[in-house]
Amino acid sequence: MSIRPTIGIFDSGFGGLTVMRALLDLVPHARYIYLGDTARLPYGSKSRETIARYAVGSGRFLEAQGADMLVVACNTASALALDVLEAESRIPVIGVIEPGAAAAQAAAANNPRANGVLVLATEATVQSHAYARACSTRKLAAFEKACPLLVPLVEEGWTDHPVTEEVLRIYFEQAFGDAKADGIVPRTILLGCTHYPLIQPLIARVLKKHFAVHGPMRIIDSAVATAQRVAGRFVMSTSTSNEELDCRFFATDSIEKFQRLGSRFLRRPIAHVQHVDLGG
Amino acid sequence: MSIRPTIGIFDSGFGGLTVMRALLDLVPHARYIYLGDTARLPYGSKSRETIARYAVGSGRFLEAQGADMLVVACNTASALALDVLEAESRIPVIGVIEPGAAAAQAAAANNPRANGVLVLATEATVQSHAYARACSTRKLAAFEKACPLLVPLVEEGWTDHPVTEEVLRIYFEQAFGDAKADGIVPRTILLGCTHYPLIQPLIARVLKKHFAVHGPMRIIDSAVATAQRVAGRFVMSTSTSNEELDCRFFATDSIEKFQRLGSRFLRRPIAHVQHVDLGG
Repeated sequence: MSIRPTIGIFDSGFGGLTVMRALLDLVPHARYIYLGDTARLPYGSKSRETIARYAVGSGRFLEAQGADMLVVACNTASALALDVLEAESRIPVIGVIEPGAAAAQAAAANNPRANGVLVLATEATVQSHAYARACSTRKLAAFEKACPLLVPLVEEGWTDHPVTEEVLRIYFEQAFGDAKADGIVPRTILLGCTHYPLIQPLIARVLKKHFAVHGPMRIIDSAVATAQRVAGRFVMSTSTSNEELDCRFFATDSIEKFQRLGSRFLRRPIAHVQHVDLGG
Repeated sequence: MSIRPTIGIFDSGFGGLTVMRALLDLVPHARYIYLGDTARLPYGSKSRETIARYAVGSGRFLEAQGADMLVVACNTASALALDVLEAESRIPVIGVIEPGAAAAQAAAANNPRANGVLVLATEATVQSHAYARACSTRKLAAFEKACPLLVPLVEEGWTDHPVTEEVLRIYFEQAFGDAKADGIVPRTILLGCTHYPLIQPLIARVLKKHFAVHGPMRIIDSAVATAQRVAGRFVMSTSTSNEELDCRFFATDSIEKFQRLGSRFLRRPIAHVQHVDLGG
């Protein structure tokens, strides 16, 4: 008999499903409970107090549902509310910032002079400077760039579109210029928002097309790095192949929209979503 | 002594301040209470049930604060929750959809063959078809176009930017094509979101530059039309010039951000904002 841990994952919306997707490959024998706080998304433009209040409510819900571990799959909530969540929870809490910074460090290890990291994130994540701090303790120099248009562009479905390409070009042009002024030469791009993996191919193309002068870049996805960190906590079961995936989904707004948009992020059909009212 | 009515205005965020700006010119002697439900914005991508719940909470708050009239300065809340708000309120409720449609009718009256209206709005407003119904009862044929990128572009401050121009060109190209397929020839553009007046000059330029073949267009701003409707309810005081404006502002998220962004929409400095927790 295998012991199946229950992993609770929460995000403001659908983006955290990219973390869950990576986890399903690495820890398929776990039970999963995913909560998307879609009635109050996005968190990325809101204040620390509001985000902490929302995050604690979501954490409590997942703990009450039987989660043995809480994965904060939202960069903004990880950046602004991880300390509050750790204080309020009786189960281990894992955010996406630390694993992302660790992956950037691993990428830089092969090239000691490549210690510059460009972090793309929401306005709130950037203002918290959580990535810069996590990178700094690893002797990496991070420049953080707020990219508020990327989430709406991904949600519009323009993941391979000239407008998104132009917005990325403008953001990178500003970021490389401002980083240079701060004495930082980025060699690693850290995707500090769970929506951004959906435009990772476009990001790679824009870098190659317009910014090749800055040299080759490594692109790090915090979602994958976080899934690897969580997987490291579990002894892998060797008899999982016959077990079905065990996933439950909750959303605070429309169930239909969660099924439709969420399937794009998870890359699997989402058959059943339960509505939950967290008092908003 | 003049009687000063208290007008309560609510919006999901800052956009409703464009309605308030128009009202301050027309009814300067009234007292104003403005509530921006910034902790839960945007409403435009959320479900009817969630929007109605948020709107009722905001309406109750303004009534408790002494409002004699409730102006729903949010197109999405007007489109999806006006009936619920009217049922739940003891004071008159005015939304932005009806005045917008009436203004479009007035614009078309000078040219009886110009009965086609193109409504630009959020996803939720379009899906409600509230503008199409309001236009239809006035013998206007409306085509509704969801423009989810325009609010983030305005909030990024790109109100006069090549990317915004290109997004508008794409949205208009799609809209004129789809409207034609429905047998509708738009002569009037109805701005069905309170963020859009901030890009009205750019909209006019894009229409002139790329779509002149469709003939001259009238651009109608629902915010102005709504302010005129509200003003019509009051006998104008003739001795207001010496009275100071009496405005109170409430926000459910960051006070600092409301002051900073809100001043752009109101085009006046906002000195004092009170935080209010509506339970979200």
